[in-house]
Amino acid sequence: MIQAVVMPAPDQPLELRQFAVPELEQGSVLLQTLGSEVCGTDVHLWHGRLAGVPYPIIPGHVSVGSVAAVGGRVTDIDGHQLAAGDVVTFLDVYGSCGRCWYCTVAHASTRCPHRRVYGITLSADEGLLGGWGEHIYLRPGVHIITLPPNLPWETLLAAGCGLPTAIHAMERAEVGFGDTVVVQGSGPVGLNAAILAQLRGAGQVIVIGGPEVRLAMAEQLGADAMIPIDGTDAAERIATVRSLAGGRGADVTIEATGVAVAIPEGMRLTRDGGRYVVVGQYTDAGPATFNPHLDLNQKHLEVRGCWGSDASHVYRAVQLLARYHTRFPWDAFVSGRYSLSNAQAALEDVQAQRVVKALIVPHS
Amino acid sequence: MIQAVVMPAPDQPLELRQFAVPELEQGSVLLQTLGSEVCGTDVHLWHGRLAGVPYPIIPGHVSVGSVAAVGGRVTDIDGHQLAAGDVVTFLDVYGSCGRCWYCTVAHASTRCPHRRVYGITLSADEGLLGGWGEHIYLRPGVHIITLPPNLPWETLLAAGCGLPTAIHAMERAEVGFGDTVVVQGSGPVGLNAAILAQLRGAGQVIVIGGPEVRLAMAEQLGADAMIPIDGTDAAERIATVRSLAGGRGADVTIEATGVAVAIPEGMRLTRDGGRYVVVGQYTDAGPATFNPHLDLNQKHLEVRGCWGSDASHVYRAVQLLARYHTRFPWDAFVSGRYSLSNAQAALEDVQAQRVVKALIVPHS
Amino acid sequence: MIQAVVMPAPDQPLELRQFAVPELEQGSVLLQTLGSEVCGTDVHLWHGRLAGVPYPIIPGHVSVGSVAAVGGRVTDIDGHQLAAGDVVTFLDVYGSCGRCWYCTVAHASTRCPHRRVYGITLSADEGLLGGWGEHIYLRPGVHIITLPPNLPWETLLAAGCGLPTAIHAMERAEVGFGDTVVVQGSGPVGLNAAILAQLRGAGQVIVIGGPEVRLAMAEQLGADAMIPIDGTDAAERIATVRSLAGGRGADVTIEATGVAVAIPEGMRLTRDGGRYVVVGQYTDAGPATFNPHLDLNQKHLEVRGCWGSDASHVYRAVQLLARYHTRFPWDAFVSGRYSLSNAQAALEDVQAQRVVKALIVPHS
Amino acid sequence: MIQAVVMPAPDQPLELRQFAVPELEQGSVLLQTLGSEVCGTDVHLWHGRLAGVPYPIIPGHVSVGSVAAVGGRVTDIDGHQLAAGDVVTFLDVYGSCGRCWYCTVAHASTRCPHRRVYGITLSADEGLLGGWGEHIYLRPGVHIITLPPNLPWETLLAAGCGLPTAIHAMERAEVGFGDTVVVQGSGPVGLNAAILAQLRGAGQVIVIGGPEVRLAMAEQLGADAMIPIDGTDAAERIATVRSLAGGRGADVTIEATGVAVAIPEGMRLTRDGGRYVVVGQYTDAGPATFNPHLDLNQKHLEVRGCWGSDASHVYRAVQLLARYHTRFPWDAFVSGRYSLSNAQAALEDVQAQRVVKALIVPHS
Repeated sequence: MIQAVVMPAPDQPLELRQFAVPELEQGSVLLQTLGSEVCGTDVHLWHGRLAGVPYPIIPGHVSVGSVAAVGGRVTDIDGHQLAAGDVVTFLDVYGSCGRCWYCTVAHASTRCPHRRVYGITLSADEGLLGGWGEHIYLRPGVHIITLPPNLPWETLLAAGCGLPTAIHAMERAEVGFGDTVVVQGSGPVGLNAAILAQLRGAGQVIVIGGPEVRLAMAEQLGADAMIPIDGTDAAERIATVRSLAGGRGADVTIEATGVAVAIPEGMRLTRDGGRYVVVGQYTDAGPATFNPHLDLNQKHLEVRGCWGSDASHVYRAVQLLARYHTRFPWDAFVSGRYSLSNAQAALEDVQAQRVVKALIVPHS
Repeated sequence: MIQAVVMPAPDQPLELRQFAVPELEQGSVLLQTLGSEVCGTDVHLWHGRLAGVPYPIIPGHVSVGSVAAVGGRVTDIDGHQLAAGDVVTFLDVYGSCGRCWYCTVAHASTRCPHRRVYGITLSADEGLLGGWGEHIYLRPGVHIITLPPNLPWETLLAAGCGLPTAIHAMERAEVGFGDTVVVQGSGPVGLNAAILAQLRGAGQVIVIGGPEVRLAMAEQLGADAMIPIDGTDAAERIATVRSLAGGRGADVTIEATGVAVAIPEGMRLTRDGGRYVVVGQYTDAGPATFNPHLDLNQKHLEVRGCWGSDASHVYRAVQLLARYHTRFPWDAFVSGRYSLSNAQAALEDVQAQRVVKALIVPHS
Repeated sequence: MIQAVVMPAPDQPLELRQFAVPELEQGSVLLQTLGSEVCGTDVHLWHGRLAGVPYPIIPGHVSVGSVAAVGGRVTDIDGHQLAAGDVVTFLDVYGSCGRCWYCTVAHASTRCPHRRVYGITLSADEGLLGGWGEHIYLRPGVHIITLPPNLPWETLLAAGCGLPTAIHAMERAEVGFGDTVVVQGSGPVGLNAAILAQLRGAGQVIVIGGPEVRLAMAEQLGADAMIPIDGTDAAERIATVRSLAGGRGADVTIEATGVAVAIPEGMRLTRDGGRYVVVGQYTDAGPATFNPHLDLNQKHLEVRGCWGSDASHVYRAVQLLARYHTRFPWDAFVSGRYSLSNAQAALEDVQAQRVVKALIVPHS
Repeated sequence: MIQAVVMPAPDQPLELRQFAVPELEQGSVLLQTLGSEVCGTDVHLWHGRLAGVPYPIIPGHVSVGSVAAVGGRVTDIDGHQLAAGDVVTFLDVYGSCGRCWYCTVAHASTRCPHRRVYGITLSADEGLLGGWGEHIYLRPGVHIITLPPNLPWETLLAAGCGLPTAIHAMERAEVGFGDTVVVQGSGPVGLNAAILAQLRGAGQVIVIGGPEVRLAMAEQLGADAMIPIDGTDAAERIATVRSLAGGRGADVTIEATGVAVAIPEGMRLTRDGGRYVVVGQYTDAGPATFNPHLDLNQKHLEVRGCWGSDASHVYRAVQLLARYHTRFPWDAFVSGRYSLSNAQAALEDVQAQRVVKALIVPHS
């Protein structure tokens, strides 16, 4: 039998359940879990803030595992045939159809209505389809990426889902060499964005957020200026950014806050003709109000919503980490490791911001 | 002496004034005015709704003239040396510096702080710097475009400033072949956008607007569906667009209304992953409220403000009109011609929407 | 039994063969063929000029059929469930894996190594996998597009594979409003490109090609100038284009010739900073020589190779045809209809350029 | 009197000449030269390999100076008013007209026919219009950029014209996070490109070039693999790149060699659907031959010529150097400093590759 953590319903305690060892379909892979991320999305899940979640679920959408068994010939994205013992990660999004209008005409696969997500929208009743368990069952068609030998799997989990999300946002941001980049929010997506801005040659990276410990981490990651939200108001923050950015404002702003009122502030601290990528409004945090003449049209501003990640973002995340993990201290994001039976504590520590990020490590 | 119409101050009656024949600086050109446009901006000017206007002004920002005199050797954009009798138009924006950060680094010349505009932000005290007069003085550096022989000048004025504005918006819209394009607003910018959507190979063009006569004109220009704002509410209009567009919504929406509440409606009638270009918020029409999670982030929407035009847009407008003016009835936009002494009536007829567009024709 | 035309091997006569009625897998569709295109690729196939072709094959890669039977629930790209009698077309490319590096990271699905093509790289030994037969078997996963009611199926076949190919090329060409577009080649891809340039708002469309009858067709389709290759040399053609295009050259050039020597000529007749899309080098026509300093680097030229089509191009082709087929005479491309037993004559007539395009119509 | 080095004619010895102190026009600036670059272009100039050079000239196109006198009010690109003692650099290109078709419609200012270049196409007979002198006269309209206080001027000259050139090339290259970037050539442009690839988040940077000392410098700058041209042939280099890049080839290749035969090699070592930027064919090095079917069309390759730099590239270069000069050892590029009277030796040392880059330092 295989043990896994189950979230039976919103606001109910997590449970440990036993699952039968699955039979492998052709094209499937069984992983022995090395580790799985605990992130803010799991807290949202626990409180039932996401629509369409088929509780009970096994949480854990970013995970690394060692290949335990393979159903026939299965290859990773690079075309390498998988074998027992390979250390791999995978895109949590499963089942993008490749046949609907969004997949084929719009090339907007993150809007495919058929996509389902490991650890989020796949039910524990369907199998080991989340990372907080001893094993994970990868259905045929899951996008698998082998970790390069020089990349510790803990580092991949430290970067977590925040890195591919930030990669997607940064792709839409079109940072120019020497640009001033402002990041609103200092959670995992914001901190990853602060790193990525430097990996686009930003001339200046400014992080707006809190609490203090997160801003200290931003500085450690190389941010040039930190603006605390505590003790400042929007007008002050806008003035500070403008003053740091030649009187004009940010060339590029990345929103990663989850707070609706951040939106008009972000529009205003971006320069005329700049780009504003909104990636942090993952759940409904209510309405925002702005002035279309001043904040958008006359400003010649571009505002770009950014939803989800696809396999390219996870693939690129792995390549980036392998190349740059000795330069940027991603590992510093992780401040807690928990066994399966301590998953409840992991969730509560993340919720209370007692740790920046927690890892579930089933076998230790 | 040269006669010109002067707008002495907001909400004051227009006046006819006499001006001395200007001495030509090196690089300048004196035009004998063939005609000049009266558009909604002139109504805004009359009511003092634009900031930074140095009254008294000579209105008229899109004009066609015949070269009367040239200060030395002056060339049009194509490099042709101008000679007396040449029929030309020109970019109303004058003085973009080419040296500031916006001009040189951002390549966002429509945000150059030094730009001034014929008929809008150049004072009558400085000379014949607007189109509603017998002559127009083109300072050195004004961007001049010669009309191709097969293009009647009346057609250029019929298309008016709405065409380069719509060209700029449509460039930012990135219409794909076969896309559904929705245009919010049936004024000159909106009607031009409805034409341009067909000149990008849109599969379907839907115009939302009013009154009836404007929607009839949209149909005459080739729009596939017209949705009146009178007698419908936003939810109905969104439902209609979605139903016409495969249940998904517009691939591209162009806002050309001047009404702030159009913005959230426009976001909602655009499909996930679509593009929404906001070009109609030319004056401050108050705030707009939307839901950042639903309307922007999860939608993976792009919202693009679009301000002003540059020389490329006027140049391209001239080429388009020369090639396609027999196919699309731009001339139908003009329903009134007025002498200089009737300029007041022209302004009031435009304001009252008694005419779609009026022309000032000084010499008739 | 079902009758189909088989090309048994290169340079062998076509044969009529009998096939068993296939059993329908889950997700498959059986079409009764309405018509299938005969194009230059089929001539290449007949002479063995393409690599990796698993003879014997049933030719015919662009086809329209009426749904005869469906294996379970199958939807078209728009999500509509298919039913008997529906008139549909489909993307000839089948089996793009959606899992390899090219599909997922590069988003370059036309370079997926797993793709196979109806009528080209699928063998007659595997079934009814080409259009020149009474029925066509659509395997699970084939991208299906329903024809709008107002679009005659003959028109779709007239536009043929040349239209999606030209759409792909034109997407890469980024035509600006009023641009001068030169098309090298007056075959089906070139003529479709000449139409599409007008559906991007080109200011001028120049077609270089031959013979006379093709250039006459280009004119009929709306091209502004035609330059015959017979009786002119490259220098003359370059001079003519420059003279028509303000002394500068084409803003955009589309190569659709199949002749290697067209490449340096195309580079030279394009203006500095312009775009040159090479789509016509479908088979190996030998080397080309150019001057990297003069023709590329100092010119600041972009040269863009363009390979294949994906489902979006076929979908967009269908939308364009439905909207614009009364404006552009695509039907004029077809000058011959042939029964299955006359397929050999169709192939030879296309080869000899006795007809512009031929259709195989099995049931008449 | 002011002393400056003059290149009187091709292949003639350099001379020291005396110039009168210029009178300052309104808008001009007189710089006291801190230093000026000696680069490969100066060697080309010395041998008469560039067309349109109005000998005698004062060489030196990238320079840093201290403001000695200002003609009225003059601002840098950021809008700061210049004062005596300010340390500045400037864009060597002067006189881009801002009015011609290339400047206004194509937005391709590096193709403006009116542009002239300090140190290259401005004659010594016209004044102090090159950097190898005690003072430099900046005509009205020259684009000036103030050095940030933390940026040593020697570092700017070490990066030299190679950095803005490489920035321009890299902008056209569109490097994705984690991409494999190959740089052909290990001169100043190539080495700067190897740095910039890391400032775009490349996953792997491969430099092909020589001699040994240059490849050692590439490694010092962070390149992941170096391939010597000595002792390898094109097929081997292509195979090595493919093997390093997942069997596919480079995602992005930057050509910076000046050798025509590098072009087909560059096309072949780039992956299908990749981008190839050609920036090194600054002088005519003869023809290149390739296979349009295999190397371009079927490859779905983009080949992008890249010519010159504009003010944005120099501005961005300054911002990058200020932010990252402690991370990448640009200073290592400079291995020789020369007084005005030793300029001849500087030129010869650069020509003989005895030094990577030389500086002229007039006041020491």
